[in-house]
Amino acid sequence: MNKIKNIGVLTSGGDAPGMNAAIRAVVRAAIYYDLQVTGILRGYEGLVHGDFIEMNRKSVANIIQRGGTILKTARSDAFRTMEGREQAHAQLLKHNVDALIVIGGDGTFTGANLFTSEFDFPVVGLPGTIDNDLQGTDFTIGYDTAINTVVNAVDKIRDTAESHDRLFIVEVMGRDSGLIALRSGIGVGAEAILIPEANMGVEGLITRLESGRKDKASKIVVVAEGDEVGGAFNVGEVLKKKFPNYDIRISVLGHIQRGGKPSCMDRVLASRFGVAAVEGVLAGQSGVMVGQVNRELVFTRFDHAIKHIDAQEVSPAWLKLVEILSL
Amino acid sequence: MNKIKNIGVLTSGGDAPGMNAAIRAVVRAAIYYDLQVTGILRGYEGLVHGDFIEMNRKSVANIIQRGGTILKTARSDAFRTMEGREQAHAQLLKHNVDALIVIGGDGTFTGANLFTSEFDFPVVGLPGTIDNDLQGTDFTIGYDTAINTVVNAVDKIRDTAESHDRLFIVEVMGRDSGLIALRSGIGVGAEAILIPEANMGVEGLITRLESGRKDKASKIVVVAEGDEVGGAFNVGEVLKKKFPNYDIRISVLGHIQRGGKPSCMDRVLASRFGVAAVEGVLAGQSGVMVGQVNRELVFTRFDHAIKHIDAQEVSPAWLKLVEILSL
Amino acid sequence: MNKIKNIGVLTSGGDAPGMNAAIRAVVRAAIYYDLQVTGILRGYEGLVHGDFIEMNRKSVANIIQRGGTILKTARSDAFRTMEGREQAHAQLLKHNVDALIVIGGDGTFTGANLFTSEFDFPVVGLPGTIDNDLQGTDFTIGYDTAINTVVNAVDKIRDTAESHDRLFIVEVMGRDSGLIALRSGIGVGAEAILIPEANMGVEGLITRLESGRKDKASKIVVVAEGDEVGGAFNVGEVLKKKFPNYDIRISVLGHIQRGGKPSCMDRVLASRFGVAAVEGVLAGQSGVMVGQVNRELVFTRFDHAIKHIDAQEVSPAWLKLVEILSL
Amino acid sequence: MNKIKNIGVLTSGGDAPGMNAAIRAVVRAAIYYDLQVTGILRGYEGLVHGDFIEMNRKSVANIIQRGGTILKTARSDAFRTMEGREQAHAQLLKHNVDALIVIGGDGTFTGANLFTSEFDFPVVGLPGTIDNDLQGTDFTIGYDTAINTVVNAVDKIRDTAESHDRLFIVEVMGRDSGLIALRSGIGVGAEAILIPEANMGVEGLITRLESGRKDKASKIVVVAEGDEVGGAFNVGEVLKKKFPNYDIRISVLGHIQRGGKPSCMDRVLASRFGVAAVEGVLAGQSGVMVGQVNRELVFTRFDHAIKHIDAQEVSPAWLKLVEILSL
Repeated sequence: MNKIKNIGVLTSGGDAPGMNAAIRAVVRAAIYYDLQVTGILRGYEGLVHGDFIEMNRKSVANIIQRGGTILKTARSDAFRTMEGREQAHAQLLKHNVDALIVIGGDGTFTGANLFTSEFDFPVVGLPGTIDNDLQGTDFTIGYDTAINTVVNAVDKIRDTAESHDRLFIVEVMGRDSGLIALRSGIGVGAEAILIPEANMGVEGLITRLESGRKDKASKIVVVAEGDEVGGAFNVGEVLKKKFPNYDIRISVLGHIQRGGKPSCMDRVLASRFGVAAVEGVLAGQSGVMVGQVNRELVFTRFDHAIKHIDAQEVSPAWLKLVEILSL
Repeated sequence: MNKIKNIGVLTSGGDAPGMNAAIRAVVRAAIYYDLQVTGILRGYEGLVHGDFIEMNRKSVANIIQRGGTILKTARSDAFRTMEGREQAHAQLLKHNVDALIVIGGDGTFTGANLFTSEFDFPVVGLPGTIDNDLQGTDFTIGYDTAINTVVNAVDKIRDTAESHDRLFIVEVMGRDSGLIALRSGIGVGAEAILIPEANMGVEGLITRLESGRKDKASKIVVVAEGDEVGGAFNVGEVLKKKFPNYDIRISVLGHIQRGGKPSCMDRVLASRFGVAAVEGVLAGQSGVMVGQVNRELVFTRFDHAIKHIDAQEVSPAWLKLVEILSL
Repeated sequence: MNKIKNIGVLTSGGDAPGMNAAIRAVVRAAIYYDLQVTGILRGYEGLVHGDFIEMNRKSVANIIQRGGTILKTARSDAFRTMEGREQAHAQLLKHNVDALIVIGGDGTFTGANLFTSEFDFPVVGLPGTIDNDLQGTDFTIGYDTAINTVVNAVDKIRDTAESHDRLFIVEVMGRDSGLIALRSGIGVGAEAILIPEANMGVEGLITRLESGRKDKASKIVVVAEGDEVGGAFNVGEVLKKKFPNYDIRISVLGHIQRGGKPSCMDRVLASRFGVAAVEGVLAGQSGVMVGQVNRELVFTRFDHAIKHIDAQEVSPAWLKLVEILSL
Repeated sequence: MNKIKNIGVLTSGGDAPGMNAAIRAVVRAAIYYDLQVTGILRGYEGLVHGDFIEMNRKSVANIIQRGGTILKTARSDAFRTMEGREQAHAQLLKHNVDALIVIGGDGTFTGANLFTSEFDFPVVGLPGTIDNDLQGTDFTIGYDTAINTVVNAVDKIRDTAESHDRLFIVEVMGRDSGLIALRSGIGVGAEAILIPEANMGVEGLITRLESGRKDKASKIVVVAEGDEVGGAFNVGEVLKKKFPNYDIRISVLGHIQRGGKPSCMDRVLASRFGVAAVEGVLAGQSGVMVGQVNRELVFTRFDHAIKHIDAQEVSPAWLKLVEILSL
């Protein structure tokens, strides 16, 4: 491998709080190791089209606390084609970029995996997604902030639910993963949590609600958008028929879950990962994602990282925990 | 009028942050003036059914900062009937309650107005609604908190909108009133604000968006749920047809707008109103709502207070302000 | 007066949340009226030294929600001298700036008043200070945010005070004014509030604490830093002697009160003032501060605005309110 | 061992956010396993004096989100004596309490360790302290909330520091442990972090500040209260002499760090620990603290848990991370 002198960095896929903290860490670490850093705008789309900017220490001043990503992110149809990726490779060569650090989720790493194998170009990934659905890291950047955002929103909903003796069905993000729903549901003291990984189903939900304390002033059901029952509105329809005397309301939390100031944990995680990614590149790592497992930094191959079925997390122990606490 | 020895207090209608601060102030002021205080649960419904509790200084300890209402609130079909109101009156006599303080919005005061005239029973109202749609007060309890909740939510949405160069249509509460949309829209720097009081219409919106800065990374349109165009989803449909290359997303903020810790302003307002209501009752006021106009406390007759068209607020000057700022 | 083509804008004195929203409004309004805008860095210091930057619509994108001031602020000894002000005037002429908008508090307007009279140069002021201690406006930009910051901080302190049955003495900002202490003290349900405008004194405080509910779990005393008793530590010393069995703690909230995202009210106020200031300049206003009195925009001469004794605010009615609520 | 029918629960030592979530989980788990639960007020002090209350499902409704502890906490000199502990034991027998769950930090577990060995009484501990200074758990309940509180406060300070080009010295809690300072310092992007575990000293700090970017607008130094240099004021004195032209300010964050709504992570941790403690008691555990290590629940003997030197956390890798990021 040639000596690395210039590292490119981009964010891709859905944005996540802490991406800016990660960019900052990549830039500062690169400078610490006497490297140049090139910012690539709008993810793979900017990579294909050569939207490159030079970054220095000042480029990342005062961004650690900001949501979103200063490098922006976008979908790229071009990068899904061989022509697009060839163009991307040519752009990197043209701009003398020797290695790439990509911050994103499974879509990002699928693309990165293809790219690094096709062009033998060094790429290291950082897990930046609110979904926490990657193998090879206990937590992804943005997850902790997202579950806090959900908890703060549902705390507000609980106020009004308590005042009216209402049942609220709250839909949170997670198309393929119930991890946001699981932890935030425990955090808000939900009476039930519906997630794709478990098969509670409508019957299970009805049983749970019927077995609960009769004098409970309010009930909160947290539903992951990917649950098989089909989202908060569907759940609401079923429950309205079954419990006609309940005052049932729906709330879809939506995009607020992607934004906001990152939590301390996400900033620390992003900072650690950003430095580790640069050090990984310098140590010859490629085709891998940096992660934290049991508090240790580890590198995991892209193809393994994106197999996001996390059986441990939604083990029976967690589901029993929800049941006990919802008494 | 007989001497007042025991004041009843209830919250009714949609809950609003600061209602607890208002209850606390009513209870403490009553005790300060050597009165008894009777809490009435679940609004007019509890009034009809005699769900009365004795309150003391400790009943309202440590609630000033809590959203919702410890007295709960509910719709009451019974109170809409003469029989229901007669029963309510009988309950008050039975429990030796001499006057009533009701905290709520226009529906609450409509009921109160009927009740006080039918039974010649002293009733004083406190404006507690996030909508700020009452005459006789510059601000209602809960409005300031609600617009801060909206602003904080849309700030998060702006993060992700900026990262993706997206246009977001954000629907906020306000079936008959655009006041939440107006102030929060200015607060988030919205590119356009759609409210029932103005007739921007879809064409106006399209013109506004077309005239805006072309290089703007993101655009936020705030829509009051009562706007004639018909809510965020309808607006979204129209815009998607007109601007097929925009990446348009919808967010309905929903019930988070009703909950949460009250802002300092709402706590102070509620505290002031609660004390003033008790002093008003003692001074022989009845059939009126306490409010604050130009920083002075005033009492307004219920039938006037509920005429909630606030022309001044949505004067051309405010709309021009939105236009200038959205450049 | 010559036609205004180029407006300069600066922030001066202590920073306040909402200053960025004000800068944004000034810039956008100027552009709306086809004017140029020149940003002046670090207040009068940058004015003297010619630290001028050209501003456009993009300069103020995405800053409405940020605390601090992008134009920075500083003390300027130079501007206190005639030589300094002459130099400042020369800089304005050199850069073809035709009028000045200054955002700050009483120190800022004292300087502005001198400058406008000495050089017959148009200057309009915006009240930007957390202290709310200016005549000619019901609220200054930053005050609402500051009292919310205090309330949120003291809510946290109340949690721990309740858990330990402690008395906390919390010192808030306000060297000459107790307005932050007054409203935030009501907002947190303080047992007593010590402010320069009232003369409660230590004896009054002791009487208040002794007369309070004996079974109260916790007590909060809010002290303005300018109170005659001399700050939280002095108050603590006295109380420890008088109530040796109380568990007394001190908390000085400090500089967090100046920062943070502006509240919705502060953003709206700043937006309104910024536009009004530009329109005022165009209409020939000078030597005045724009403000809001009874919801109407008004202009007040600098020399009147800085007489910051606000007797109304700390009228006996407010102090009685505190007494009633602290039962 | 006799069959457990009635579990006592208390909170002791400094309060921490999430203690209420832990109490809730203990109560609900006990009920789930058909046990009675006895709440003991004000920690060991209430244990000695028999301040016991019966708890049911409703006792812990709607407390998961609240800071502080509904069972209150206090210092107990009595429990430090053999007589006091004998009295405590007698109270437990008198009230038919068969096992004790104590929520607190090292002082709590020191007392619990003595008590369980003296009286052969089953005691299981939950780590509830913002300091995160216990062996046998990766995180203590309250730590995550505290570092978020610090980060949010310092973000506000950064706003004003940036506006004025100031250096701020911010003192955070941690008499024996720098863990709050370490993570929150990374989270705020501090230029330097002073903690008891490292020996940067004043010279190291001066070197760090001198080597930093000259054009940096603001600098934040985070100091743990237990650092050998002696707190923020001492550090400030030294720096003022060394850098007379810096504008240096001090902020001692104080007791806000103990309060506030618990973060989602703290709620989940507390929920998990509370259930595990009850299950541990039923499984015959005693003299141990429940904790989470590498995401697994583990029990650690009290005498081991309270040896709170956490060498791993403040390893050179973390300190290098701070150095790299502060460029």
